[in-house]
Amino acid sequence: MAMDAISVIRSKRDRAALTDEQIDWVIDAYTRGEVADYQMAALNMAILLNGMDRREIARWTAAMIASGERMDFSSLSRPTADKHSTGGVGDKITLPLAPLVAACGAAVPQLSGRGLGHTGGTLDKLESIPGWRALLSNEEMLSVLDGTGAVICAAGDGLAPADKKLYALRDVTGTVEAIPLIASSIMSKKIAEGTGSLVLDVKVGSGAFMKTLDDARELASTMVGLGTDHGVKTVALLTDMSTPLGLTAGNALEVRESVEVLAGGGPADVVELTLALAREMLDAAGLKDADPAKALADGSAMDVWRRMITAQGGDPDAVLPVAREQHVVVAPASGTLTRLDAYDIGIAAWRLGAGRARKEDPVQAGAGVELHAKPGDTVVAGQPLLTLHTDTPERFGYALEATEGSFDIAPAGTSFTASPVVLGRVD
Amino acid sequence: MAMDAISVIRSKRDRAALTDEQIDWVIDAYTRGEVADYQMAALNMAILLNGMDRREIARWTAAMIASGERMDFSSLSRPTADKHSTGGVGDKITLPLAPLVAACGAAVPQLSGRGLGHTGGTLDKLESIPGWRALLSNEEMLSVLDGTGAVICAAGDGLAPADKKLYALRDVTGTVEAIPLIASSIMSKKIAEGTGSLVLDVKVGSGAFMKTLDDARELASTMVGLGTDHGVKTVALLTDMSTPLGLTAGNALEVRESVEVLAGGGPADVVELTLALAREMLDAAGLKDADPAKALADGSAMDVWRRMITAQGGDPDAVLPVAREQHVVVAPASGTLTRLDAYDIGIAAWRLGAGRARKEDPVQAGAGVELHAKPGDTVVAGQPLLTLHTDTPERFGYALEATEGSFDIAPAGTSFTASPVVLGRVD
Repeated sequence: MAMDAISVIRSKRDRAALTDEQIDWVIDAYTRGEVADYQMAALNMAILLNGMDRREIARWTAAMIASGERMDFSSLSRPTADKHSTGGVGDKITLPLAPLVAACGAAVPQLSGRGLGHTGGTLDKLESIPGWRALLSNEEMLSVLDGTGAVICAAGDGLAPADKKLYALRDVTGTVEAIPLIASSIMSKKIAEGTGSLVLDVKVGSGAFMKTLDDARELASTMVGLGTDHGVKTVALLTDMSTPLGLTAGNALEVRESVEVLAGGGPADVVELTLALAREMLDAAGLKDADPAKALADGSAMDVWRRMITAQGGDPDAVLPVAREQHVVVAPASGTLTRLDAYDIGIAAWRLGAGRARKEDPVQAGAGVELHAKPGDTVVAGQPLLTLHTDTPERFGYALEATEGSFDIAPAGTSFTASPVVLGRVD
Repeated sequence: MAMDAISVIRSKRDRAALTDEQIDWVIDAYTRGEVADYQMAALNMAILLNGMDRREIARWTAAMIASGERMDFSSLSRPTADKHSTGGVGDKITLPLAPLVAACGAAVPQLSGRGLGHTGGTLDKLESIPGWRALLSNEEMLSVLDGTGAVICAAGDGLAPADKKLYALRDVTGTVEAIPLIASSIMSKKIAEGTGSLVLDVKVGSGAFMKTLDDARELASTMVGLGTDHGVKTVALLTDMSTPLGLTAGNALEVRESVEVLAGGGPADVVELTLALAREMLDAAGLKDADPAKALADGSAMDVWRRMITAQGGDPDAVLPVAREQHVVVAPASGTLTRLDAYDIGIAAWRLGAGRARKEDPVQAGAGVELHAKPGDTVVAGQPLLTLHTDTPERFGYALEATEGSFDIAPAGTSFTASPVVLGRVD
């Protein structure tokens, strides 16, 4: 029978499971432009509200992979290991993690994205390094990976083009937050990329797309299932995103903090999560004897970082951009900081210019938010709590609206237990 | 606060009631092209699946009215009465009804539509009369209405343009069947048109958008509430659409049957529904003493019909187009016809060329289905049951697929009670 978009939309609208034929047809026809954006938008909303079962998600993912080319890293002498985070505030982990895992013996082909909305993007962060290029040809990518052990770059246009088109549409139609669509989007790119193993960092909390541990666990197990079905060894950590990671949210600010971690310092939560993910990646890649803590301490991770940045045109010794204006938010009372909301800080950083409102907007390299305390810390009335950075000080007011209710300070002596960084594991 | 499409979509997606400001903004911005089709498609699907409350529907309707001009019939000496049917198979009632009610003293400004999908459209039917024009300027419309008492024409572009745009979008995105969207679409046009009273014919059954009496009652009471709130005296009849109305479905075929009714004959169900709706319209217009049965019998309704058709360029004496090919479906057994499915017959008529697959397609004036028996009738094996008409006989096979399961014949003597024509009333 001939397929048409309306009948596919109606099936999902009326809570039916889509057939394999419907899924294959609609993804292919959408990629070719036969199914219109407005039809796919209606279908996405029906999927978001009515869900998809495991078979539908697997088929949807396979159809997106089939829409483009697949990469092949089998020529490399090292096992490949990749990581994907579902996105958070202050989540700069890819920056220290990729060179660290490479220093321990794996090849890390890290195809990354740009920030949109309140979450930052790895490529935007690295672009604050003078000269660094995100866009590499497939040959350049393989060459950097082979030469340094790690590469962080934009996904080529040939990889899962259906996902590329669909993601852009979901972003402007309020249909990002659907587990089947998130899982298939992430996994189609990662499977097409050809990595041998994959560690997922599924964020939970106010600053993440998944607000509850249950939702995060469902997303994680959906993705682990998809990876396993396609022969990619896949593991997920569920990690906290109720508080920003580290002490910075913003592009150059986060590069600076990442370099601190590679130099053996940096905030405890960033170090802890970097090491936890590194161990999972190395395990998944079959390098169980590697010691990532040692590779951080002995400078070998930093060496890979410097070579990787240099290989992509960047100057690892260049002075990073600094925003032209700063505004300090002070603690209004003394006591214990019990909450510092990831979502609010992410919105503030975004409004200051670290993120973009529309895909075509530029970002400010220096903009963002610096944190001077984390939950559990004692603060004194009048001390700096946040420093806002921007090149466009007219945005301070708009950003301050976001930070206004972003923290709670309890009387000194209030008992407080910080959330662990890693909340769970799915394999 | 500045509005944006994504936040409006998210509100409805997350089951919130949209605020008045959100509704006003999104309808206006969509009409202006600031909100994209794909965003409105996602919002429509969220409305279909998550619903709208009474206040939202009322505001949505008001916003669509405000998107265009409003007509004014207060210069007429007669009270205005209008009818709207939610659409069915063989539903030619507007054709005899408008001149009949005009013959009884009301002014009937009947803005009508074209068929899409399996339901026919009044304008398509009338266009099978040689010379007849559906497109009138507002001045022409008023002149025909003033001169003959009735006019049936296309709604001008200025009337509820938001609805026009939205309806076309819903049609191609599987979002037609949402009570809030159906009710607001119909009522925005009728209220903007400026009629003083309105009778709604809400169809129930396989050939209608509303499959159950409960859904039809909800739609009816939503629309009656909207009309009443805007000062339009509004009443709804719930009427059967499990079986086609009359003995024809198709354009010229239905005109012929309508003329039979105006001549004092015609199928009993068409006459019954025409009179029931005429009485409601005359009551609503304050003409309680009028006698529509008399106006059918004495030829005064036919006189108005002839003048109305002539005033719009048509020749009421012209021979109507006849399809080039016919195919007869015979009764496979003897007994009592217990079911003749409106949806199946509507699909068959559509496939024969009476309807269009895309908005820009032409329709065939002569195509359609003629019925030789109705539920309750005794049939003899081998007698004609249906005659299919088309100019494109290669479509017979495709149409016959639709009629295959369209009827049931029970052994003679099986007790059978036909559904009444009018199933309920809402005011």
